Amino acid sequence: SSLKLGMIPADGIGKEVLPAAQRVLEALGSAIPKVTFVPLLAGWEEFNARGKALPEETIRVLKEECDGAMFGSVSSPSHKVAGYSSPIVALRKHLDLYANVRPVSSVPGMPGPKVDMVIVRENTECLYIKKEEIHDAPGGGKVAYATRQITSYASERIGRMAFEIALRRAEERKGATEGIWAGKEGKVTIVHKSNVLSVTDGLFRESVRSVYDAEQRFKAVKVEEQLVDSMVYRMFREPEIFDVAVAPNLYGDIISDGAAALVGSLGLVPSINAGDNFVMGEPVHGSAPDIEGKNIANPIASIRSASLLLQSLGFPEAATKINAAVDAVLLEGKYRTPDIGGKSTTTEVTDAILKLL
Amino acid sequence: SSLKLGMIPADGIGKEVLPAAQRVLEALGSAIPKVTFVPLLAGWEEFNARGKALPEETIRVLKEECDGAMFGSVSSPSHKVAGYSSPIVALRKHLDLYANVRPVSSVPGMPGPKVDMVIVRENTECLYIKKEEIHDAPGGGKVAYATRQITSYASERIGRMAFEIALRRAEERKGATEGIWAGKEGKVTIVHKSNVLSVTDGLFRESVRSVYDAEQRFKAVKVEEQLVDSMVYRMFREPEIFDVAVAPNLYGDIISDGAAALVGSLGLVPSINAGDNFVMGEPVHGSAPDIEGKNIANPIASIRSASLLLQSLGFPEAATKINAAVDAVLLEGKYRTPDIGGKSTTTEVTDAILKLL
Ligand SMILES: CC(C)[C@H](C(=O)O)[C@@H](O)C(=O)O
Ligand SMILES: CC(C)[C@H](C(=O)O)[C@@H](O)C(=O)O
Repeated sequence: SSLKLGMIPADGIGKEVLPAAQRVLEALGSAIPKVTFVPLLAGWEEFNARGKALPEETIRVLKEECDGAMFGSVSSPSHKVAGYSSPIVALRKHLDLYANVRPVSSVPGMPGPKVDMVIVRENTECLYIKKEEIHDAPGGGKVAYATRQITSYASERIGRMAFEIALRRAEERKGATEGIWAGKEGKVTIVHKSNVLSVTDGLFRESVRSVYDAEQRFKAVKVEEQLVDSMVYRMFREPEIFDVAVAPNLYGDIISDGAAALVGSLGLVPSINAGDNFVMGEPVHGSAPDIEGKNIANPIASIRSASLLLQSLGFPEAATKINAAVDAVLLEGKYRTPDIGGKSTTTEVTDAILKLL
Repeated sequence: SSLKLGMIPADGIGKEVLPAAQRVLEALGSAIPKVTFVPLLAGWEEFNARGKALPEETIRVLKEECDGAMFGSVSSPSHKVAGYSSPIVALRKHLDLYANVRPVSSVPGMPGPKVDMVIVRENTECLYIKKEEIHDAPGGGKVAYATRQITSYASERIGRMAFEIALRRAEERKGATEGIWAGKEGKVTIVHKSNVLSVTDGLFRESVRSVYDAEQRFKAVKVEEQLVDSMVYRMFREPEIFDVAVAPNLYGDIISDGAAALVGSLGLVPSINAGDNFVMGEPVHGSAPDIEGKNIANPIASIRSASLLLQSLGFPEAATKINAAVDAVLLEGKYRTPDIGGKSTTTEVTDAILKLL
């Protein structure tokens, strides 16, 4: 058997960290099937070059030929540009990658609070449906509207994903003696703002709860709720109380950046965009134009995303192997990129990880 | 001359911290005109008691008789309750209190990062217009929609407020030698998510910028932008880089809780809801049902809100006097409520502040 992976570096440091992940995947040798990497185009630079932020060919190849994919990062124009629309948002929709799963853990040997949580972000609706309009306002000036959509369908399936992850995490740490969640039962925190958005966020929380209520096995997991403003507050005051957080799209976007700050750098936080039939790894960081081309971007978020991808594709041992190598390099502390206080290059950090595989 | 202030404790600890602020205002003696306090009803408890979360009488008295007001905090039902709608959101709208101004500063003598910023939150639109609907979805289940409204009118006036505040702060610290912004020029950070919401958030950022471009005197202030997810990240990584942040309603709600976490407790962070004709002080914290009735709520957010109210009403010396007393009590460290690591009661902290007035 063999694997075919679409590789979409897109913009900025995406073009530096995705090759690093590829090198790691290549180094796994017989731990995984032979991988064929298929380079694919998307992004703001691609839009400027050939007029399409997400060429149809990219979607077609992903859908018809690939077993999974890796995405880098996108730049975006600071003004509205006719015809341009974020390719990552579009890809999530086209491939129905309805869950954005973002595990955030504090780094052994680095200062900062203890964190070990997973953010499960709904990936297809909320304000991200991008239904917007603008009109002349009656009294002069302009008035613009955006529509926020929440469905029971999307909320239930993201809720189910969150409970499954919480169950799996609880299972994995059953015998553990180390780590803040060692031996503890699972917990899911539903993030919403139903004190203001009683209809849409009301539907979100009730849909997630209905999934919980419907299946006996989920009862091994505790359910709690946080208003999104309070969630940001608490994450910074006592991040150790969170295990799995499930949130509508925009809140999920915001709290995952918050969680990343807690563990020292966005450059460490991986994600997968997951659907029932396709998975795409993606570092949580952006395209970072300020450090582009300097070979100092942290490759770890991208490498960890590759590990998540392998886990999803059914290769948990290979995934664990990558994570162990990354942790060892971080713990040793000799090779670190500037975002986490080091002086190493992207290449040096990647080399150090490769040596341990 | 004399002042008439509406006092709306509303729910939970609002009923404990608002009286503390009143005691402080009463203790100012001749530093301000004689104040008459008018107790007014609102809140979830009031809704349960008499069926209205915001009685018309409360609005009428505020509009017709009062020079300003203080609001406590509201509880909200965890499920949608027919006829109930958040009274604080409604008050902001009824009185056209279009700006929520939230200064967040780190506390002398307390651990944590150095912070000295003001969040200027638009208070009348965005998703807070609460236009929501729910339908049966074509494929089964439910689909709900909320409308997010952004106007050039509201965005321009909140932008103007932000630039005015940045100019005033820069003026005040001109000769200063202490503090992270001592002697520095002003800076306004526009918070948005225009990479996804190019129309609504695009209108917000362009409106704020147009205000800046239109007036020469604003050029003494620097303008920057942050995407809201990145803003949360940066606030936690390097909060000292922010001076004044201006944001649409929901982002403003979220980032002000984040900023509060940085300075140790929501119990320290004051705000005013300000319009062109009316101002209402309001601590940023919620009703905290878990500590209600225990006399351990931190009164400082409420007392500082009273100080902001006085400043707005044209009594800057009295406002400064309150702030100095609060800072001295915090610095001494003898009287602190549990939220900031102490064992004092609400009454003890208030007494300590009163002694210094
Ligand atoms: C680039 C942007 C559209 C994207 C998002 O908001 O989803 C990014 O912030 C992310 O979190 O992946
Ligand atoms: C209680 C709630 C409606 C309110 C808001 O979201 O504005 C609160 O969080 C605040 O920040 O004042």
